[in-house]
Amino acid sequence: MEIQWVALDWGTTNLSAYAVGADGMIVDQVHNDMGMSQLTSNEFESTLVDVIGHWLHADRVAPVLACGMVGAHEGWRDAGYSDAPCLPVDRNTTVCVPTSDPRLSVRIVPGVCQRQPEDVMRGEETQIAGYLAKNPNFDGVFCLPGTHSKWARVANGEIRNFTTFMTGELFSLLTKHSVLRLSTASSGWDDDAFLAGIKAAMSNPDRLTAQLFTSRPRTLLNGTPNEVLKAHLSGLLIGTEIAALREMWRADDVVIIGDQENARLYKTALGAFDIRSTVYNGAQAIIDGLRPLAKNFVQEPEPV
Amino acid sequence: MEIQWVALDWGTTNLSAYAVGADGMIVDQVHNDMGMSQLTSNEFESTLVDVIGHWLHADRVAPVLACGMVGAHEGWRDAGYSDAPCLPVDRNTTVCVPTSDPRLSVRIVPGVCQRQPEDVMRGEETQIAGYLAKNPNFDGVFCLPGTHSKWARVANGEIRNFTTFMTGELFSLLTKHSVLRLSTASSGWDDDAFLAGIKAAMSNPDRLTAQLFTSRPRTLLNGTPNEVLKAHLSGLLIGTEIAALREMWRADDVVIIGDQENARLYKTALGAFDIRSTVYNGAQAIIDGLRPLAKNFVQEPEPV
Repeated sequence: MEIQWVALDWGTTNLSAYAVGADGMIVDQVHNDMGMSQLTSNEFESTLVDVIGHWLHADRVAPVLACGMVGAHEGWRDAGYSDAPCLPVDRNTTVCVPTSDPRLSVRIVPGVCQRQPEDVMRGEETQIAGYLAKNPNFDGVFCLPGTHSKWARVANGEIRNFTTFMTGELFSLLTKHSVLRLSTASSGWDDDAFLAGIKAAMSNPDRLTAQLFTSRPRTLLNGTPNEVLKAHLSGLLIGTEIAALREMWRADDVVIIGDQENARLYKTALGAFDIRSTVYNGAQAIIDGLRPLAKNFVQEPEPV
Repeated sequence: MEIQWVALDWGTTNLSAYAVGADGMIVDQVHNDMGMSQLTSNEFESTLVDVIGHWLHADRVAPVLACGMVGAHEGWRDAGYSDAPCLPVDRNTTVCVPTSDPRLSVRIVPGVCQRQPEDVMRGEETQIAGYLAKNPNFDGVFCLPGTHSKWARVANGEIRNFTTFMTGELFSLLTKHSVLRLSTASSGWDDDAFLAGIKAAMSNPDRLTAQLFTSRPRTLLNGTPNEVLKAHLSGLLIGTEIAALREMWRADDVVIIGDQENARLYKTALGAFDIRSTVYNGAQAIIDGLRPLAKNFVQEPEPV
């Protein structure tokens, strides 16, 4: 297996590693839950070697490019932030991480911050860079759904401003730890209920904390099934997020970068607001965003 | 100690018991965490005897009047709901609970439900009844802050409609279980930050899920102290709740029924919206709401 470089998406809870071959294609990948929150600062290198050691050769140095919470203050090494407006990824600001294993040469991409209103991202900037690497003239709006959904406006290759919503984390907290867990525990799903939740949020985006509660009386009074209430709750949260951003996406198409399930939900939700969107795979976006940096290390042929 | 009857506020997480004397005054009280969620249906009686046994006499039957989640389907006995519009408490609908201990005669007050939009309360109806017992001609709006804050419109002695907000539970989830716990863990408080949170919510009540997140970047970028961010978070949640109810409290004074700390916060928040409010103690409201029912059992003199 001929590996040119390694891409790492190293977040709070998960680690994804991709081995990129001489032709620029992914030849192997590993996904596990060895996220930043599991590790102390001196455990990152050994964890990385455990995960990608079988890709390494004794007589060669493998370029490893990383983004995400691995570059946070509590991560492997604090890679700081670039201040928006800025390039999402700038090869001059990546931070080198010294390693004791001579087969590794590790660099981490800084996050992006916004001073007013205060906001931060780590990892999403690389995904945006990935889309821009393929679509260098794109001006418009990115939606990056997840635990903390990000919406970013990009113009002239720069992130101009962005906003984070706690949508994914709220869904998780409410369905796992709140009284609503009794009304939403389900492996099922109901697309109509999801759309109804979006529309309820669209009509009353300022009543979220009241609308969330309705799941409970709907169980108690009507016996509404849990899969309906779970999908409705998701629709309420995603719909509130989109409603709050009317100004941002007006007159623009939206590029959604995320995993398949999140992308499907957000595309549906945006459609309910009559907003067109295109989807770009989140893992691919990471690799495409890191690829130009790898060229500092290796002469990698363009993918065919 | 001469006890005429016992008032129980038996909720999901806590039990409060009050011994009411011959003069109508509270002669003793017990508070513990033996809430409904800790107990199976056959443990309620023994728990009650453990808690109030020292108030009971072998040769007398003590009337015990209870409200709260003790009357839920998962409680001691399902006391059902009265359908709003309705009297908050109706002596004809209380539910008798059979006991094996001959010293007890237990009745539970039903909750109140609303069919459209679906909503439920258990315990707050008794507090509203308590205020109305003292102010029988009151028409207006009640605010009952807590884990699930309730706002109720009352006219002609009846609850007309009401709305529940998850404010208290969201504050607890976010400060204990979310990424924001890292930015809000503090025993301190900052009144100015609380007011700033209220005003931020007032300006953008539809952006709550984005505004909540700002605590995290304010820590990371500015080193804002945790007590500031905790109070700001509380202001955001309470401010969003009040902003959503503009229609409800327009032209009305508000009666806040709650504990001292919640009442102080909500009175401050309502003041920021230029809404006048009066405060009525939550525990006193329970006792005043149950007192008329006790008269079915005992000839209790009016308190002086």
